Amino acid sequence: MRVKTQPGNYFEDFQLGQDIVHATPRTVTEGDMALYTALYGSRFAVTSSAQFAADLGLDCMPIDSMLAFHLVFGKTVPDISLNAIANLGYANGRFGQPVYPGDTLSTTSTVIGLRQNKDGKHGVVYVHSVGVNQHGEMVLDYVRWVMVRKRNLDAPAPEAHIPELPDAVDVADLVVPFKLRAGRYNTDLAGSPYLWDDYEAGERIDHVDAMTIEEAEHMLATRLYQNTARVHFNQHVEKEGRFGRRIIYGGHIISLARSLSFNGLANALSVVAINGGRHTNPTFAGNTVYAWSEILGKLALPGRSDIGALRVRTVATKDRSCHDFPYQDAEGKYDSSVVLDFDYTVLMPRRM
Amino acid sequence: MRVKTQPGNYFEDFQLGQDIVHATPRTVTEGDMALYTALYGSRFAVTSSAQFAADLGLDCMPIDSMLAFHLVFGKTVPDISLNAIANLGYANGRFGQPVYPGDTLSTTSTVIGLRQNKDGKHGVVYVHSVGVNQHGEMVLDYVRWVMVRKRNLDAPAPEAHIPELPDAVDVADLVVPFKLRAGRYNTDLAGSPYLWDDYEAGERIDHVDAMTIEEAEHMLATRLYQNTARVHFNQHVEKEGRFGRRIIYGGHIISLARSLSFNGLANALSVVAINGGRHTNPTFAGNTVYAWSEILGKLALPGRSDIGALRVRTVATKDRSCHDFPYQDAEGKYDSSVVLDFDYTVLMPRRM
Amino acid sequence: MRVKTQPGNYFEDFQLGQDIVHATPRTVTEGDMALYTALYGSRFAVTSSAQFAADLGLDCMPIDSMLAFHLVFGKTVPDISLNAIANLGYANGRFGQPVYPGDTLSTTSTVIGLRQNKDGKHGVVYVHSVGVNQHGEMVLDYVRWVMVRKRNLDAPAPEAHIPELPDAVDVADLVVPFKLRAGRYNTDLAGSPYLWDDYEAGERIDHVDAMTIEEAEHMLATRLYQNTARVHFNQHVEKEGRFGRRIIYGGHIISLARSLSFNGLANALSVVAINGGRHTNPTFAGNTVYAWSEILGKLALPGRSDIGALRVRTVATKDRSCHDFPYQDAEGKYDSSVVLDFDYTVLMPRRM
Repeated sequence: MRVKTQPGNYFEDFQLGQDIVHATPRTVTEGDMALYTALYGSRFAVTSSAQFAADLGLDCMPIDSMLAFHLVFGKTVPDISLNAIANLGYANGRFGQPVYPGDTLSTTSTVIGLRQNKDGKHGVVYVHSVGVNQHGEMVLDYVRWVMVRKRNLDAPAPEAHIPELPDAVDVADLVVPFKLRAGRYNTDLAGSPYLWDDYEAGERIDHVDAMTIEEAEHMLATRLYQNTARVHFNQHVEKEGRFGRRIIYGGHIISLARSLSFNGLANALSVVAINGGRHTNPTFAGNTVYAWSEILGKLALPGRSDIGALRVRTVATKDRSCHDFPYQDAEGKYDSSVVLDFDYTVLMPRRM
Repeated sequence: MRVKTQPGNYFEDFQLGQDIVHATPRTVTEGDMALYTALYGSRFAVTSSAQFAADLGLDCMPIDSMLAFHLVFGKTVPDISLNAIANLGYANGRFGQPVYPGDTLSTTSTVIGLRQNKDGKHGVVYVHSVGVNQHGEMVLDYVRWVMVRKRNLDAPAPEAHIPELPDAVDVADLVVPFKLRAGRYNTDLAGSPYLWDDYEAGERIDHVDAMTIEEAEHMLATRLYQNTARVHFNQHVEKEGRFGRRIIYGGHIISLARSLSFNGLANALSVVAINGGRHTNPTFAGNTVYAWSEILGKLALPGRSDIGALRVRTVATKDRSCHDFPYQDAEGKYDSSVVLDFDYTVLMPRRM
Repeated sequence: MRVKTQPGNYFEDFQLGQDIVHATPRTVTEGDMALYTALYGSRFAVTSSAQFAADLGLDCMPIDSMLAFHLVFGKTVPDISLNAIANLGYANGRFGQPVYPGDTLSTTSTVIGLRQNKDGKHGVVYVHSVGVNQHGEMVLDYVRWVMVRKRNLDAPAPEAHIPELPDAVDVADLVVPFKLRAGRYNTDLAGSPYLWDDYEAGERIDHVDAMTIEEAEHMLATRLYQNTARVHFNQHVEKEGRFGRRIIYGGHIISLARSLSFNGLANALSVVAINGGRHTNPTFAGNTVYAWSEILGKLALPGRSDIGALRVRTVATKDRSCHDFPYQDAEGKYDSSVVLDFDYTVLMPRRM
């Protein structure tokens, strides 16, 4: 009689090139959208109004890119990171087909890198994951790497292989689902008069607003994404752990930061690429999250005069205002208040 | 390079007659309805059952009037009350077309009154706001007034103008979307045998039930309404503030009180007018909200024998039972437990 | 002038054979499904993916059986258990037609048993409740019994009548809505390779995972079900009560346990019967719930080679790991950590 409980994979269970079909396909609904609004207070018009979305050439009101990210990501947890001790980074994330209510998302992953730690107790696993809709169309394609425990410390180390990852997603690889008609983009309804033309590389924006997180909120969110990582849910165990409390899913902070960024980036219609990202410190219930952004680059899109892209770094902090843009010290060490360093690309209407 | 963050308007930024188009149109979904039920536990049959709604002549199951109120109201916050220190009152609120899932709501406002305070630091702004659906049909039309800070204390005071506001919405102005057929109204399913005919002016009802509010709940609600007022969300700042804690959005209390009022007013199909309302004390997480109501008046509707209206005052308290109807003392000063004094009009079936 | 508030029924108000039509029919939506996922993190594929459901022969994605249970149950509370001091047990629960978004549920009950306590202050009421959809089709049919206060201690005791209840729902009475086609059931997507054939009577499974409950969560859930039992909501009163705090609705624990059981019973497509159940200890916010299961029996379904049934006992504990299967001592007394003893029947694909 076999033990029926899934223990998750340990470092020695992963093999280079291994393909994994993740469980629990997920049909997205308007219920998910309402919960996403309730959890983060997002005000971007294209994911709030069916009419606004239609004016941008979409079939109907899409879900927020980051909600798609969480749903695609959540499926990978039971196989990839149930025994992880750290989610180290993201790279080369591209969003494809917009996700609409009624779409069903599923995720597969391939192991593209492995490197055992010198301590012999852990190793880093690089995974390329692809989320698709019910038509098999790509909705999200990204790489993440995590540090995973070994169960059997005597298991031999695999040959180290670290994949080459781009510094940023190439402009030519961005999928642009929007189509603007001259004079049809309403900045009053969008919430800001500032368009792509008005931003400059190097510009920094304090998003001013902030939100305090409650235990119930991050757990509701993380369960909505069917993310099963234990550190988020079990206070009975975590009270004896490293921090004495539940750790908030890093993606929750990404969505909060994106929502806060509305105040300063209201016309950033959608996230189309994740160039890189790091959760630089853990967050806990009771923390108040602030955010600021720097425009890393202005990207013209080939053949498009209606929409441009901005490469943005959004930094989130806990319990510290971002009026002076807290980040790293001279040695590159993050300020202790910084919890997220997120490098991504958004689409924004151009002045026509 | 302009600062891209929206600072909100200060008292001196408002001008009499000024029109404001508020951002972020909002498509309502069944997800919003489910969250509304989860947040308040509302049991009114017409907003709970598609069949019950159809029997009342509606196209499909409408959202609760007060959910429509919160959505329309929420849009005004970034422009009207981001720098407000008090939400002073509501008047002349009329609900129009019922709101159904799929409808997109947007809001515009006109400044109809201004009066600078004697202290020279604040002023009262009167705003007439109109929420419409995607067909341009009015769903809610109301006036509120708020006390807003001045940024520049040297800005000259505008000429004072205080709008005339009716004591109550006129019966002739009520929009009645329901049509009852004799014998088709099921009081068992509605939850009470008491119809319009059974209530008397002056009658007082202790709604008995009560609900304790958690931080997560009022923040989920307030974000769902895309209401961005900072006092509700940022404990890091509020812990240094006047109360040492986040203040609950006043509308959250209105919805709780309306939901509690089911026990005694189960056949109050929907709120059709807001005659006036005051948030008389702040509420905080941990407070338990009770409510009682007084029937202020029985209003026959012109040409209608199927439905009548009741003008109701619902008073909500915190941490105090309403068995003895706490309200005001002889000088009109509110009992310290009273947090809401809400004067509104509901529709109720008549005995046919 | 009558008091309009509903006081709920007391023991002496119930009569053998009495029929009760419960208020507030409830149209189920995708919003309810999203909230259910957010509250419990359920990962069963058939209630998560429209495609997976279609492959099992369903019209569309059904709601979780236990969500249907809570909605049907919730309606009975104002009439049956508002004045109850204990929810003693469930028996003979059969699920019928699957419930889909758009369906409207309503509940009626019949009093099938009464027995006054020796103390003369309380009595046990046995109720047979039936939930139907808008076509009148049975979606859930079950018996529960509760201990209810007397209001008038002088009211005469009714003749005692205790209904005969089966130990378990008969296999012939199970409604099986699924139809598997050979080779079409994808165990990768379902989350486990273990099918009906792989389980053995007597097998015990520690579900490993656990969840800590917050006040906001159980109140959101209980309000979603329109369950009005006061002990769940009013801290102002409960702080003076027996436990000094709000008690969590027992059904919340059932849903948590069912969700946790995914890890070990991922192919348990749906709950089709509730043979019996007891809430053996109260739970409170801050408790962490664990679960384990024992396979009580393997039931072949008449004429079906595609699907079988398992009779399962799932035991939930608070603040205690289930690695050693805590349950009862030699005298049948429950371990103080055990909060739920739930005996039910699930459907599971067979190896074809």
